Amino acid sequence: MTRSELFAQIKAKSSYLCVGLDTDIQKIPAHLRSEPDPIFAFNRAIIEATHTYAVAYKPNLAFYEAMGPRGWESLQKTLEIIPNECFTIADAKRGDIGNTSGLYARAFFDKEASGLDFDSVTVAPYMGEDSVKPFLDFPGKWVILLALTSNAGSSDFQRLEVVKNADTLHSRALFEQVLMTSQNWGNRDQLMYVVGATQAHQLQRIRELVPEHFLLVPGVGAQGGSLEEVSKYGMNRQCGLLVNSSRAIIYASSGTDFAQRAAAEARQVQQEMANYLNEYLT
Amino acid sequence: MTRSELFAQIKAKSSYLCVGLDTDIQKIPAHLRSEPDPIFAFNRAIIEATHTYAVAYKPNLAFYEAMGPRGWESLQKTLEIIPNECFTIADAKRGDIGNTSGLYARAFFDKEASGLDFDSVTVAPYMGEDSVKPFLDFPGKWVILLALTSNAGSSDFQRLEVVKNADTLHSRALFEQVLMTSQNWGNRDQLMYVVGATQAHQLQRIRELVPEHFLLVPGVGAQGGSLEEVSKYGMNRQCGLLVNSSRAIIYASSGTDFAQRAAAEARQVQQEMANYLNEYLT
Repeated sequence: MTRSELFAQIKAKSSYLCVGLDTDIQKIPAHLRSEPDPIFAFNRAIIEATHTYAVAYKPNLAFYEAMGPRGWESLQKTLEIIPNECFTIADAKRGDIGNTSGLYARAFFDKEASGLDFDSVTVAPYMGEDSVKPFLDFPGKWVILLALTSNAGSSDFQRLEVVKNADTLHSRALFEQVLMTSQNWGNRDQLMYVVGATQAHQLQRIRELVPEHFLLVPGVGAQGGSLEEVSKYGMNRQCGLLVNSSRAIIYASSGTDFAQRAAAEARQVQQEMANYLNEYLT
Repeated sequence: MTRSELFAQIKAKSSYLCVGLDTDIQKIPAHLRSEPDPIFAFNRAIIEATHTYAVAYKPNLAFYEAMGPRGWESLQKTLEIIPNECFTIADAKRGDIGNTSGLYARAFFDKEASGLDFDSVTVAPYMGEDSVKPFLDFPGKWVILLALTSNAGSSDFQRLEVVKNADTLHSRALFEQVLMTSQNWGNRDQLMYVVGATQAHQLQRIRELVPEHFLLVPGVGAQGGSLEEVSKYGMNRQCGLLVNSSRAIIYASSGTDFAQRAAAEARQVQQEMANYLNEYLT
């Protein structure tokens, strides 16, 4: 999916909501556990209930890997029923030396090899350019690079000041350096960044560094980020935001009404987003 | 496996060789491709041929994920036939926010959940403490944290100087900061570090920062690192090294003699290691 196709979807649905499919067998409604594939049954109901309000879906791979090969089968089946107009994100946070990252790219982008055909994958920057490039080499696919994450541990390394100039005291935060350096690896039509919503006050500065790129913003909802602040400081001319909500939507109810309640939650977020698109889209 | 058990194995085999099971369906001998599970058939032959000379095995997850669910099945079967006295490493380079890293830990350490029961997993440090802790919380299991990797991209961020003191020009490399900070998260009985062999000249400095920890050293062999330098500068009182070789051993031959040739390669490395253990074990 191209950037302009994604923006067209955002306008059509008045939404930049990404629903995180963090599907945990221990958290889904009890009545689904007798299904032949409970994870898939849950995901199908959530997708059917929310796709009117969501422009993207983001399964986090950890939830599927924790179940072994049958988890991967549930993931394959889930990906197949996500409507074509929705952007799909493998939240895998991968990264390895060049030839090995190429195999991870095959795992998420090459359906013939692995059964999976995501639009994008999240990648960790620590190993540098040659660990990211093989993902960018897949035509029509996206890399979503971790920049500033929403967890407490983001202060351990991401916010450390790195020396820009050894002769002076000039420095910038590591996550800013990641934003700067990685722009040489790919362009705004193939590269997005993860910026946690709990860091909304940093978005103004981040937008100075990456004015045009899409940002994937987790941390709204259960993690406490403010959708209004993210939208105010993060939105650009093509929206440039995908805001993820996982638990607040998919676990809105643990009863038989879970899909209905998920739809209501997603609709509420979408309506809020429609207002912000009116207000902040420049 | 405990640190002293691992050292006992190193002494028993006079070896600190780790064999990397980077098993690529496109590279294994043609005659294996008619097997019901060619990847497993290849791994079984390699393990049978090399386990006398190797103290550890390290499947890189990318190679298995690229094949989808059947890749995970090959991995499960492979893990089951690795002899108990060998240390097993899931080279997965994972890392996510706390509760999600907990699920990755389940994926690699909790056999009931996922079918896999590795001794250790490689983890990326970028997301900080709460992304690493859930792996350390599994009793008896190890985290092998990326510090300085063997690829060219290690210069993009890992070698950047980070500011130690804002009032002075004092700084240290990011990978050194990773070594320093992470020692507060776990001890030498549950935490190892990845240090690429192509960086052997850095090992002296690294040993000042982490004198007691085990280091997993990839990059010897096909990537050009020197086993002698790694051993000279990296060995400590309990050896403290696991040196990985993948392609040079497992693809020593592409014919029907592949296992025999792999054994010969592994034996040669082991004999070299026996000499270095004599010379450098202090």
